[in-house]
Amino acid sequence: MQNGQTYLWKGFRPMNERLRKGTSLKDELNNLCESLTPKRYTKGEIIYQAGDLDDSVYFIKTGKVKLAYLDESGRKLTLNILGEGEILGEMSLVGEKRRELMAQALQESRIYSINSARFLNFLEERPWLTLELIALFGQRTREIEHKLEDLVFKDIPTRLSRQLLRLISEHGEETAEGTEIDFKITHKELADLIGSARENTTSALNRLAREGILDKHRYRIIVKDAERLKEKSSP
Amino acid sequence: MQNGQTYLWKGFRPMNERLRKGTSLKDELNNLCESLTPKRYTKGEIIYQAGDLDDSVYFIKTGKVKLAYLDESGRKLTLNILGEGEILGEMSLVGEKRRELMAQALQESRIYSINSARFLNFLEERPWLTLELIALFGQRTREIEHKLEDLVFKDIPTRLSRQLLRLISEHGEETAEGTEIDFKITHKELADLIGSARENTTSALNRLAREGILDKHRYRIIVKDAERLKEKSSP
Repeated sequence: MQNGQTYLWKGFRPMNERLRKGTSLKDELNNLCESLTPKRYTKGEIIYQAGDLDDSVYFIKTGKVKLAYLDESGRKLTLNILGEGEILGEMSLVGEKRRELMAQALQESRIYSINSARFLNFLEERPWLTLELIALFGQRTREIEHKLEDLVFKDIPTRLSRQLLRLISEHGEETAEGTEIDFKITHKELADLIGSARENTTSALNRLAREGILDKHRYRIIVKDAERLKEKSSP
Repeated sequence: MQNGQTYLWKGFRPMNERLRKGTSLKDELNNLCESLTPKRYTKGEIIYQAGDLDDSVYFIKTGKVKLAYLDESGRKLTLNILGEGEILGEMSLVGEKRRELMAQALQESRIYSINSARFLNFLEERPWLTLELIALFGQRTREIEHKLEDLVFKDIPTRLSRQLLRLISEHGEETAEGTEIDFKITHKELADLIGSARENTTSALNRLAREGILDKHRYRIIVKDAERLKEKSSP
């Protein structure tokens, strides 16, 4: 593409050049948001709860956001962790009036809120962004399918290895020791991501640490040997 | 909407009339396919396998198609059962070259195959269909999320009740006795839909039959008391 522009959705490959003549969704959203003030959320602050009436699309300027499902008895499953330049709440674009998931800031974050009618007008004026938006929905579907596949077919150590590989691919920062997950994550949060109990997740993490595959201290995780982690992820 | 047109995606509510001035995706696809000959698949025939290179979008003229994930050891999880007027293989629109799922005809079916480049041209000439297509992807994401939610938080009888409610809502036919699932479904296929063993699914089905909530004979299932099934689905 022209001018080294970045695309919002990993894995997005423009297939139809006629539909892809303009700038990328991320660039256009940055332009749109220039005139807006992002809201500041503190660590742990709720952006929306399941059941909330909320007609906005959110665009993350800085920070990390957890999307999770909470069941009636308070058990939690984390579906995704999103970072800078990513969108959430996009289901309001297709007529979903109430939130089905909860969104929570995992660290201090600055987030733009765009009314869905405004977002749709913005899209209408930039039809070349459509495919990229469709690709976003497609990618979200695949991510959830992979999680489902893990839950049905994989044991906890395998699920943990696969989740850690996803985290370093989406939120990894290269350091001298290896690839570090670039935000603080508790064992409970990791457990919620793989649909497991905290205790089992801690044991599986300790095993990986003993084998020299990762290092962990104070909610920081550094993957030192991604190759061996990959082997563990498809036993 | 005008002229009583039908929309392909349940739950789709046009939010932005400016984007929704034309006919529906289903109507337009029917027009597009008028000049094409659908391929005939026999019961059990594979449409595509995971790993296949396949650049098409499929549009079901008649029949039922199962979308499933198979793991290396042959265990299966059915993600969805699609019927007349529904689309599959839409991930080829966003650059996915290899199939991740398997698609199999559950009964004799006639299915149109549309090259993805052609489908994208078709969309480009009908920009008002975009939102409906985005809604399709959104709906698929929600369906998978609900399945994930079931697998993590619900026991097998609850999962079965929820699955049966989905089946009669999407594939139900009203009869004098109740709502019948309009295709033959084996206990194994139901088990694959709820991520359970066949034996446990049969016991849970038998319990519902004894309680007078459903009738089953020869792969046919009739839900006689949807209200009580609903109670069972949120215990």
